[in-house]
Amino acid sequence: MNLLLLRPEDRQEDGSYAICDTRAQHMLEVLGVTPGDHVRAGVLDGPRGTATVLGIEEARITLSMSLEPQAPARPNIDLLLALPRPRSLKKLLPEVTALGVGRIMLTETYRVEKAFFGATLLRPENHRPLLYEGMMQAKLTHLPEVTVQRKLWQVLKQLPERFDDHIKLVAHPEATAPLAQVRLPRKKPVLLAVGPEGGFIDKEVQQLCDAGFSAITMGDNILRVETACVSLMAQIDLLRQQS
Amino acid sequence: MNLLLLRPEDRQEDGSYAICDTRAQHMLEVLGVTPGDHVRAGVLDGPRGTATVLGIEEARITLSMSLEPQAPARPNIDLLLALPRPRSLKKLLPEVTALGVGRIMLTETYRVEKAFFGATLLRPENHRPLLYEGMMQAKLTHLPEVTVQRKLWQVLKQLPERFDDHIKLVAHPEATAPLAQVRLPRKKPVLLAVGPEGGFIDKEVQQLCDAGFSAITMGDNILRVETACVSLMAQIDLLRQQS
Repeated sequence: MNLLLLRPEDRQEDGSYAICDTRAQHMLEVLGVTPGDHVRAGVLDGPRGTATVLGIEEARITLSMSLEPQAPARPNIDLLLALPRPRSLKKLLPEVTALGVGRIMLTETYRVEKAFFGATLLRPENHRPLLYEGMMQAKLTHLPEVTVQRKLWQVLKQLPERFDDHIKLVAHPEATAPLAQVRLPRKKPVLLAVGPEGGFIDKEVQQLCDAGFSAITMGDNILRVETACVSLMAQIDLLRQQS
Repeated sequence: MNLLLLRPEDRQEDGSYAICDTRAQHMLEVLGVTPGDHVRAGVLDGPRGTATVLGIEEARITLSMSLEPQAPARPNIDLLLALPRPRSLKKLLPEVTALGVGRIMLTETYRVEKAFFGATLLRPENHRPLLYEGMMQAKLTHLPEVTVQRKLWQVLKQLPERFDDHIKLVAHPEATAPLAQVRLPRKKPVLLAVGPEGGFIDKEVQQLCDAGFSAITMGDNILRVETACVSLMAQIDLLRQQS
């Protein structure tokens, strides 16, 4: 835990924060905090700062927060993913969260197994801890928004209003344009679409391109979805740094 | 399984191959092969090609191999890693293998927990299946060489002869040179050093720099070792493509 993440419900009337769950347990057992100690902390969807331990009563820790004036910027990449198998999704969520992602849109495509939509991991109470894990790892306070909408065409139909200003890229092994040659202005948000194992079918790539996506390739290696997402996000970040 | 990986011990006297383990099980139960069917295959540390099912006797499949003239090039990136915790190593091995890695050198640094060196995963019979998993995923035939040498100074002392021609990079959050600005000739091999959770200590970074490494930074986010390795390898691959 590189950042203690505080949530609105932890806040008490007097402005202090109180926690008594696994976060408190970690602070007591791993960090061994005592009153007066400081830890790096952040407020969910808000600024970061320093938390000072005011008091400890058994497993309950009371903290005061000194906040930085500005919250970290919202991550400027969003993902549109063919719903991966639960095992992949479980690995992927904390990793892409740690890299910084604004919204993760999960959808169905031709090669997605329908059974994946029954995964318990799709319930917020089950996947949110994985998002928190990534945020606390990378010291981020922005909680990625996870949405599930099965029809790809519906997702694409709703894109214009929300994603007008995004550079839209779809990773497709058969594309001819290498990502390495794409110019990405530093501040421009990106919407990245990644297909299922086996890839998007041609019709879906066409639908995406009709909706403003450009097909790019990252190379010949066929990667698992979680490896592909991390690789692509890292490469996009690097391209932005170069601009 | 995107590539059936055949090993020397599968080869029979008449030049055909016979398998009767989980690979055969996968071919029978998932792919549903019958005699005459072709599957994409490769020979360990050798060329790829097409395997044709000659016969099936219960769970045993006999195959003939038609090989391409040239084996895929050896991956031109090697890793020097502070031994990660077993849970991270288990995730990391198939992922970096799928991205293509020649050698993975595991070593001890100040912030590595000594107990990690007792991990059963360090035994070849335990980690080799994870390497095969990455190879079969990405259709690669080169088996990464995994070595464990505890003393970092010994690893570094032995570097010159083996890694003279490598560009040596060490990922260090406090470095001032961004990886995005490094020029990487396409054919030049890279040796990438990645520290433990909490990073290398200054003395170790100095040792690495004395051994010819350049310290680079990939940004502010503190990532898990497995996410950092995949990100850095993907970024290095992209920089090479740009040269």
